[in-house]
Amino acid sequence: MLHYDLVILGAGSGNMLLSEEFGHLRTAIVEPGRFGGTCLNRGCIPSKMFVVAADAAEDARAARRLGVHASVEHVDWKSVRDRVFDRIDPLHESALEYRRSQGVDVFTEAAHFVAPKVLEVGSERITAETFVVAVGSRPVVPDIPGLDTVAFHTSDTIMRIDDLPASLLVLGGGFIAAEFGHVFQSFGTDVTIVQRGPRLLMAEDEQISQRFTELASRRHRVLLDSEITSVAPEGDGVSARVAGPDGERTVEAGMMLVCVGRRPNTDRLRAADGGLEMDSHGHIVTDGAYRTSVPGVWALGDAVNHFQLKHVANAESRVVRHNILHPQDMRTLPNNVAPHAVFTSPQIASVGLTEQEARRRGVEFVVSVRDYSQTAYGWALEDTTSFVKLLASPADRLLLGAHIIGPQAATLIQPLIQAMSLELTVDRIGHDVMYIHPALTEAVEQALLEL
Amino acid sequence: MLHYDLVILGAGSGNMLLSEEFGHLRTAIVEPGRFGGTCLNRGCIPSKMFVVAADAAEDARAARRLGVHASVEHVDWKSVRDRVFDRIDPLHESALEYRRSQGVDVFTEAAHFVAPKVLEVGSERITAETFVVAVGSRPVVPDIPGLDTVAFHTSDTIMRIDDLPASLLVLGGGFIAAEFGHVFQSFGTDVTIVQRGPRLLMAEDEQISQRFTELASRRHRVLLDSEITSVAPEGDGVSARVAGPDGERTVEAGMMLVCVGRRPNTDRLRAADGGLEMDSHGHIVTDGAYRTSVPGVWALGDAVNHFQLKHVANAESRVVRHNILHPQDMRTLPNNVAPHAVFTSPQIASVGLTEQEARRRGVEFVVSVRDYSQTAYGWALEDTTSFVKLLASPADRLLLGAHIIGPQAATLIQPLIQAMSLELTVDRIGHDVMYIHPALTEAVEQALLEL
Repeated sequence: MLHYDLVILGAGSGNMLLSEEFGHLRTAIVEPGRFGGTCLNRGCIPSKMFVVAADAAEDARAARRLGVHASVEHVDWKSVRDRVFDRIDPLHESALEYRRSQGVDVFTEAAHFVAPKVLEVGSERITAETFVVAVGSRPVVPDIPGLDTVAFHTSDTIMRIDDLPASLLVLGGGFIAAEFGHVFQSFGTDVTIVQRGPRLLMAEDEQISQRFTELASRRHRVLLDSEITSVAPEGDGVSARVAGPDGERTVEAGMMLVCVGRRPNTDRLRAADGGLEMDSHGHIVTDGAYRTSVPGVWALGDAVNHFQLKHVANAESRVVRHNILHPQDMRTLPNNVAPHAVFTSPQIASVGLTEQEARRRGVEFVVSVRDYSQTAYGWALEDTTSFVKLLASPADRLLLGAHIIGPQAATLIQPLIQAMSLELTVDRIGHDVMYIHPALTEAVEQALLEL
Repeated sequence: MLHYDLVILGAGSGNMLLSEEFGHLRTAIVEPGRFGGTCLNRGCIPSKMFVVAADAAEDARAARRLGVHASVEHVDWKSVRDRVFDRIDPLHESALEYRRSQGVDVFTEAAHFVAPKVLEVGSERITAETFVVAVGSRPVVPDIPGLDTVAFHTSDTIMRIDDLPASLLVLGGGFIAAEFGHVFQSFGTDVTIVQRGPRLLMAEDEQISQRFTELASRRHRVLLDSEITSVAPEGDGVSARVAGPDGERTVEAGMMLVCVGRRPNTDRLRAADGGLEMDSHGHIVTDGAYRTSVPGVWALGDAVNHFQLKHVANAESRVVRHNILHPQDMRTLPNNVAPHAVFTSPQIASVGLTEQEARRRGVEFVVSVRDYSQTAYGWALEDTTSFVKLLASPADRLLLGAHIIGPQAATLIQPLIQAMSLELTVDRIGHDVMYIHPALTEAVEQALLEL
């Protein structure tokens, strides 16, 4: 039985927790996958490298509306892929070596709890004063007849394929479907999306979700209120039976991407055997300070909540670091300001309450919606579909939520995140701050002034 | 002699001052040019419509670095131009008719003061209780031998030309040179810039100016520390003698653009005859409330300061409106937060003190510079030249200045403008606010955390 002061399970946001303040401790990291976790290896970072290339291809094709006659001869998939992973893949080894050079033990085998604060890693058993569980999540593979007979992809694998398929069947209508739909369509692949719900991106504000569904339906074949009932191999690809409002149909495609959600890796960790209280979704239950039901065991990231956002997990990691070091002065994270973006086309960014959430919770609100086309820069873009939507509390004039669909959405939203986080009223940020004319930020200004 | 309660000289930002609160007054507007002023007709708005098209052309050509092989077949200048002005030109007539329908008299002849608060417009003489002088500015035409013999352009005329020239000689190295250099080069014209100073965009932070000069020199022929000593016609174009550090040379070009600065239109207004105190640059002197030396005469915009920024003039217009309506509760504008952007390539945005200004004024500061390439989105862009530079006061931890060169600069800077305007410390906006990963805003976050 090995004993440590601190054991960190997961080298994604967990790894970021380690700072020199822990240098005097006997520390281990357990990571059966790769340093950097989902974000660096299979998530945000590589996907954005594909998305930026996809944006470039789509923008070139769309330049004609501006009087610029451009065309895309071809997209060199292998060069995009190799540029991405030649940059990312070496980081695992260097991060691992760096930790070892600091005297941190790194275990690279899978681990699971066998008792509270007792971990089995390969043939070793490990205990520690302090555990931090940051084991992340993985794609859900649904139980569809025949799925095990075809070579389907998830977000874990699809970025590493050798050749672009002529057609792609996407099962799911969330942010991964929206991002990869954009990537593959822009690169020349015909994309079909099968979505169980009535719209794509159902978690977004309804107006955003509705607008995105309309725009995506111009680019892809989007089958709403539909489910795949069975799958079979067909040549090198797949043939799927899809049940929808108009009955059943067959959809054939050269490749299949399954992205119906992610599940926490707490099952593989046997978190329950470690005595950790779990919720019905397999998340470890923590208090606001990220303490679990077992004293000395902390948890963060996808293992504890639905956000699946690297910047949230990083913030949680900083909170946990602080709380371990300062048990007399624990902190929490204000979870109502967890912004996110979907890097699809058009880009989407959001923070705070959606209108449907506000209604469901009975929160009083005023709302404003301003189109990019009502600003000079929106004119210049010949934009007709982008908008900024704001919800504010009529009582204290604070923002409740902000939702943007359109170019630069993930950048445009930052002053609104700042206002929510620092409790600045819409009147102060609307009236007492200048907005450069004619920048895209004027769409935000106008939405604020309309409130 | 006609008498009014209120006369507004200039239908740019002056026109925006009129609100229903003035509805009971006998009001006139004097505008010998076009409603909307420089910004709408000859400035910010049409130029951005050209710039966005130029961005699209340049981005398409640059997509190869991302593995996207695109090309620009041609740019249809006439369609760009007509799209711009078919949209803008009708606005003058409708704005003028709108004012007349409200009972406002509109004079469309040139006007000048003949005595304090006595204006001559055509054959009429006009007096008023209250005058607002918002007559704007116009391009300076320098005194160069031979310039009167060639058909040179200024920013007033170059957007309306019929055909793209094969080559363009730009005299000047400020923001107009930077924006039109980008537009014409992106559209296929060879651009030569002749700049008197050692760098382009000398008013920007030195590091920004230096970086921009390097990048512009890769696209254009940039002649620094140089002056045009004479010009002569050459075919349909011009032949210019240019004196620089390496002696004199001849530069020939199909077209010439003169953009060496702008001068206030106060000379044509004979502002001095109206008893208005002037500064040595021809600006009308006002106090912080925008009152001139003549009681009842207010002035704003390019007629009173060097900003040449529509959003500043609009803010001044709102202050003057308030002050006319509430003489017991006058307001001023905090002039230290006047952000601006240069819509060239790469985009540039700035607010507050530059480093050289801080040094000159003896202001204590700490500085941080973060490259886009240090963020995931910068990676994705394969960006190697863009950065965020921040200056803050070590005493109170408030931002002194922010300077950005790179994609989306004019959008990225908004949370920093917000922080300066509302006096939020760099620690609060760095630590207490989330930045979406992996958005471009992380470059701002990192620069803040480095402070």
